[in-house]
Amino acid sequence: MDLKIEHVDDLCTGAAFLGAGGGGDPYIGGLMVKMELQAGRRIQILDPDTVPDDWLVVPTFMMGAPTVLLEKIPSGEEAIRALRSVEGHLGRTANATLPVEVGGINSTIPLFVAARLGIPVIDADGQGRAFPELQMETFAINGVRGTPLGMSDEKGDVAIILTEDNHRMEKIARAVTTRFGGTAYVANYPMSGEQVKRASVKHTLTLARKIGGIINGARAQRRDPFESLIEFLVTTSYSTAKAIYSGKIVDVDRSTSGGFTLGYVTIRADGGGLDDCKIVFQNENLTAKSGSRVLAIVPDIITVMDSETALPITNETLRYGQRVVVMAVEVPAIMKTPDALKQFGPSAFGLTDEYVPMSG
Amino acid sequence: MDLKIEHVDDLCTGAAFLGAGGGGDPYIGGLMVKMELQAGRRIQILDPDTVPDDWLVVPTFMMGAPTVLLEKIPSGEEAIRALRSVEGHLGRTANATLPVEVGGINSTIPLFVAARLGIPVIDADGQGRAFPELQMETFAINGVRGTPLGMSDEKGDVAIILTEDNHRMEKIARAVTTRFGGTAYVANYPMSGEQVKRASVKHTLTLARKIGGIINGARAQRRDPFESLIEFLVTTSYSTAKAIYSGKIVDVDRSTSGGFTLGYVTIRADGGGLDDCKIVFQNENLTAKSGSRVLAIVPDIITVMDSETALPITNETLRYGQRVVVMAVEVPAIMKTPDALKQFGPSAFGLTDEYVPMSG
Repeated sequence: MDLKIEHVDDLCTGAAFLGAGGGGDPYIGGLMVKMELQAGRRIQILDPDTVPDDWLVVPTFMMGAPTVLLEKIPSGEEAIRALRSVEGHLGRTANATLPVEVGGINSTIPLFVAARLGIPVIDADGQGRAFPELQMETFAINGVRGTPLGMSDEKGDVAIILTEDNHRMEKIARAVTTRFGGTAYVANYPMSGEQVKRASVKHTLTLARKIGGIINGARAQRRDPFESLIEFLVTTSYSTAKAIYSGKIVDVDRSTSGGFTLGYVTIRADGGGLDDCKIVFQNENLTAKSGSRVLAIVPDIITVMDSETALPITNETLRYGQRVVVMAVEVPAIMKTPDALKQFGPSAFGLTDEYVPMSG
Repeated sequence: MDLKIEHVDDLCTGAAFLGAGGGGDPYIGGLMVKMELQAGRRIQILDPDTVPDDWLVVPTFMMGAPTVLLEKIPSGEEAIRALRSVEGHLGRTANATLPVEVGGINSTIPLFVAARLGIPVIDADGQGRAFPELQMETFAINGVRGTPLGMSDEKGDVAIILTEDNHRMEKIARAVTTRFGGTAYVANYPMSGEQVKRASVKHTLTLARKIGGIINGARAQRRDPFESLIEFLVTTSYSTAKAIYSGKIVDVDRSTSGGFTLGYVTIRADGGGLDDCKIVFQNENLTAKSGSRVLAIVPDIITVMDSETALPITNETLRYGQRVVVMAVEVPAIMKTPDALKQFGPSAFGLTDEYVPMSG
């Protein structure tokens, strides 16, 4: 299937929803993709189950501070240079690219790369949402090596990293990103078509587009977007979605530390009677609690949405007085295995609460 | 000429002298080289003027905190892996290696690499002493590209850096070194034999060995090592050497910041009458002043030596009460050009004093 220009806004809205409060605003990435389509370039979205086993598939993405992105608009060549450096190291050209995370801006980077290079994008990703660190990937959990990792910046500088350890890959690449000026464009986890089938969260670009379509189309169709979302998600691999809380934001605490946005938001229910809901985040929302009761917890997706428009609110733009609905979505089976929970479950973020999926 | 095991201690002493207070203690590097020679391996030292123009020559060295080196003894494979990663990127095998700096431990790393790989070491380097940063190289000043740079650590991790800008090469590699745990082994400035002849400070390994021989042999020969050194250096491209001050250390201020050892040492002349001598350092000694009078200034070499043994004292081991002689040595012509002074003269270290060579 080809991505059409009228799909881009829906894809971006859905990507913001799957970003769980983080992942970076997909707005700029969406603009870059639209410009490619307007210039007549094609973006083919390929079903992961149809990818030839012997293909070389290399994910492309942006890492660093999304706030810096706004001051340092990419030319697009950065991500292509990163991909080329991995290809150069492997001595082989990539047959396709895909996102490492479908949540936030990184849903759009591979679309741009694909348009420029004339290769397809696989309809799948390695997080099924957004997570803050490079080792938090279903690719890693299912045996794909993280490196060679190639990264580049707007000045044309390149770094190639080789390590057996994905945590060290994260730390080294993060240090280089800082020296690159706060953002970098990266290609890593080069994999075969066979590995794509086994190690990815499938059909997530389509999922993002459909989620966005429901949110953006609700007003015209006079439907309740929250109900529509829940009805839709039950038919997908994400299965269970709930509106877990609604009310008014009464407190936001947010700081930047170690390259992450850390903090919490407190929401007070209308009419009272319920304990306040407190959502704690490290870039992405990690837990939603009402008093001591856990309403939802990572890796399940917790997203704060405008109660009128149902548009997702990223953590950078939370503010006092916003009326919101909090939705939580259970993640697909590949993201709830013991190995997956070790990589991006509660303990990976230093939380002591156990993972209890939305379905209970 | 082949390096003999009985030359190694002299080479290390001379390298410490040329280290100008920094460069790291060559002791561990010397041990590694001796073990290679004892194992029957050969280290051929090649005159730079005899290197074929079309050879690929790649310097190898260690970067980071010499203090960490003592806790994280290298296996030697680190530097070889760094060299191999540059070779892999260029698609060509190195014909020889050489030091980036003859001062301190980095005089010894290429000797070890050469022994293991069975390639010669060129009798030349890119600093003619020691300097703290990667762009401070006669290679750079004379048009050799700094990258591809390859670096590795004891865990086997590798980073390859590509940039047109040697200052950015320094900053990125420094950040990776920190993530590697404080030390890294590096290969960069890959160059042709023709470039070696044009861009290096020549015959500096031999120089180091001879300087060390004079210091280590003085007692047995009942000669004054300081006078012997001055007499010897006047016959070399370093030409002018002087004992600029002698006395007792009365104050040492030393701190570690941004990966550098910063501080000063104050020396009081015996008998009084002279203003104290204050030597300021950033890893290496930068200026020696008596009152407001500049006795010596970078890039000339300022080395504090034990007044009894004439052994060089590195800045990590300076302490109150030591009786010392301060020697200063004028650097060769290739290190005093306007371009060279821009790269590693007083202003490169933020000093406002002008460079005045030892010969006045």
